[in-house]
Amino acid sequence: MITSPTLLLNKNIVLKNIETMAAKAKAANTIFRPHFKTHQSAETGSWFRDYGVECITVSSLKMAAYFAVAGWNDITIAFPVNILEWKEINELAEKINLNILIENNEAISFLEKKLTNPVGVYIKTDTGYGRTGVDAENMELIGKLLEPLKTSKKLIFIGFLTHAGHTYHAHTTGEIKNITADSIRKMLALKTFLRSDFPMLQISYGDTPSCSIATPEELNDLDEIRPGNFVFYDEMQFRLGACSRENIAVALAAPVVAKHPERNEITIHGGAVHLSKEFLTDEHGNNYYGTVTVLDGYTPDVKNIIGKITEISQEHGIVKIDDKNILKNIKPGDMIAVLPAHSCLTANLMKGYVSANGEYITMMI
Amino acid sequence: MITSPTLLLNKNIVLKNIETMAAKAKAANTIFRPHFKTHQSAETGSWFRDYGVECITVSSLKMAAYFAVAGWNDITIAFPVNILEWKEINELAEKINLNILIENNEAISFLEKKLTNPVGVYIKTDTGYGRTGVDAENMELIGKLLEPLKTSKKLIFIGFLTHAGHTYHAHTTGEIKNITADSIRKMLALKTFLRSDFPMLQISYGDTPSCSIATPEELNDLDEIRPGNFVFYDEMQFRLGACSRENIAVALAAPVVAKHPERNEITIHGGAVHLSKEFLTDEHGNNYYGTVTVLDGYTPDVKNIIGKITEISQEHGIVKIDDKNILKNIKPGDMIAVLPAHSCLTANLMKGYVSANGEYITMMI
Repeated sequence: MITSPTLLLNKNIVLKNIETMAAKAKAANTIFRPHFKTHQSAETGSWFRDYGVECITVSSLKMAAYFAVAGWNDITIAFPVNILEWKEINELAEKINLNILIENNEAISFLEKKLTNPVGVYIKTDTGYGRTGVDAENMELIGKLLEPLKTSKKLIFIGFLTHAGHTYHAHTTGEIKNITADSIRKMLALKTFLRSDFPMLQISYGDTPSCSIATPEELNDLDEIRPGNFVFYDEMQFRLGACSRENIAVALAAPVVAKHPERNEITIHGGAVHLSKEFLTDEHGNNYYGTVTVLDGYTPDVKNIIGKITEISQEHGIVKIDDKNILKNIKPGDMIAVLPAHSCLTANLMKGYVSANGEYITMMI
Repeated sequence: MITSPTLLLNKNIVLKNIETMAAKAKAANTIFRPHFKTHQSAETGSWFRDYGVECITVSSLKMAAYFAVAGWNDITIAFPVNILEWKEINELAEKINLNILIENNEAISFLEKKLTNPVGVYIKTDTGYGRTGVDAENMELIGKLLEPLKTSKKLIFIGFLTHAGHTYHAHTTGEIKNITADSIRKMLALKTFLRSDFPMLQISYGDTPSCSIATPEELNDLDEIRPGNFVFYDEMQFRLGACSRENIAVALAAPVVAKHPERNEITIHGGAVHLSKEFLTDEHGNNYYGTVTVLDGYTPDVKNIIGKITEISQEHGIVKIDDKNILKNIKPGDMIAVLPAHSCLTANLMKGYVSANGEYITMMI
């Protein structure tokens, strides 16, 4: 029996989400290199094997080391390389095929001196998100990076990698499709332009909204896709139109501890240390930190949304429940389920899952 | 040598913060029951002993159990009791003096049946924050709660507890002082009104902004204060006027991984999984997730603020540095320090500290 905040994971939904994305990658004739930063779990990672997945993406060296121990031997760290960690890179690159991201010559010249084993290198490319990476159209800078890579024996140039994270700011699926098309066009231009010098050059493409909404045909020009969040999805992806609520595979089970009918609220033990402070904004301009559903055993009833978390502090969540009849039947000691705004951050905080048959699933700690 | 995101803790500053608050509590003739949810560390907790601290506050049963193992035997869980955890309450109450918060009759009648050992009970009181608790002026509801508590042998009524968290929404220290005075006035009214029935009734008062800004005289009517964040402080408290930057005892050391001079930005490995997504809003209406300083060994130079984190994602932090001369000298492979927006959430994510002499300090995990 669950008595305290617990992250529930529905394996059937996870498997369906993996199956759908793996089938799409296959139909698009592109490599499926899922991002494991969402689940951070060796066991959950192992479920991908049945769908033909052999290479993965992570967001830190620590996470790469964790999944290497779990048997993954082809890992891309999709984060601009931290050159201070050159020793750990050497250790890992001795054991597995390790790919890193480069976006400046400082990293190239430093690592060229320090690396003892070859690593694969992608140039981290910005197709419009504006977070980090080299502007996909800045051929001068790209040329400067390629120059030393051409002759390097340690840094083996693979191609260009982008995360089109600006899809998260889109308001319609049409807008997402446009961002995807524009980003792929820019990446393809690089490939075409550099084909004579680098005939094996690959383009690697990320982000769950793009990969969920695009048809296989629209992903056909990519050598590789790296969605991550799709394994669980969440309220943010639902809002973006990247999934239905039936695809959301994790929910925070949280106990009701207080009730304030005069303001249509309940208080739950479920706060920023469980869900994170990530929020969405509804059509009235109000922020919310997750959607609340009825919990049936270990399964949230996603067809039965009863409210939203409107305020969150370290351990408290305040849930607004507008339907007086529903509120009337909720009492302290009940458990409700929260579909998180952002499942990656919730999983990272909870550090473990409970499956629908009550088994505990561990994560990296 | 630090090579990856690391939470630095300056013990000297911590001790000074504890000393100042302990001295204020003593001058106010009030019990000092610090909230340990900020540091969540047995070692950091042990430093309070030298300042006469014998009783503490925590925010969950799990945290109470952790500090009980560390030798604390008088603990208040300052969160509305989760009745589903009655077994764990019984286990803990057998070993230590445990106090819980009640705000509804459901919890009273349930626990009256289930508890095997007596626990201290505060009525969780709302003096205007509006998060949870019984309205301090709702004498009808307070009366209904007191009725069964009068005769209970398991639930030993101690008094009223409040967290005046609306101080966090204040714009000036004057406003904070007004909230503090108003909250204490409401609590004192309860004490006065109920004195004949409950001559030993105590009032317990929380929140770091109140306790930092009030004079000892202004806290004199309280039986107990429970500030927590003051042990580390952070940018939020600095903005509120509750501390100076010299009082901020923790900083995230983060490696620089990329530089984008065309938009005055650097990218650091320091994101939502390190700092949380808590943000502050500056005078121009822009959000920021922490303030960036030069790092000198293990010590952030708080007099040398060079920028702000303007965007944050799971692992990335984007730092805006407006001074071109400063930006010119920063390169990938440098380490900078981030003074967090909210130190409690940052500590909770980092799960450990490195002290100024390079020692690792563990936390509850």
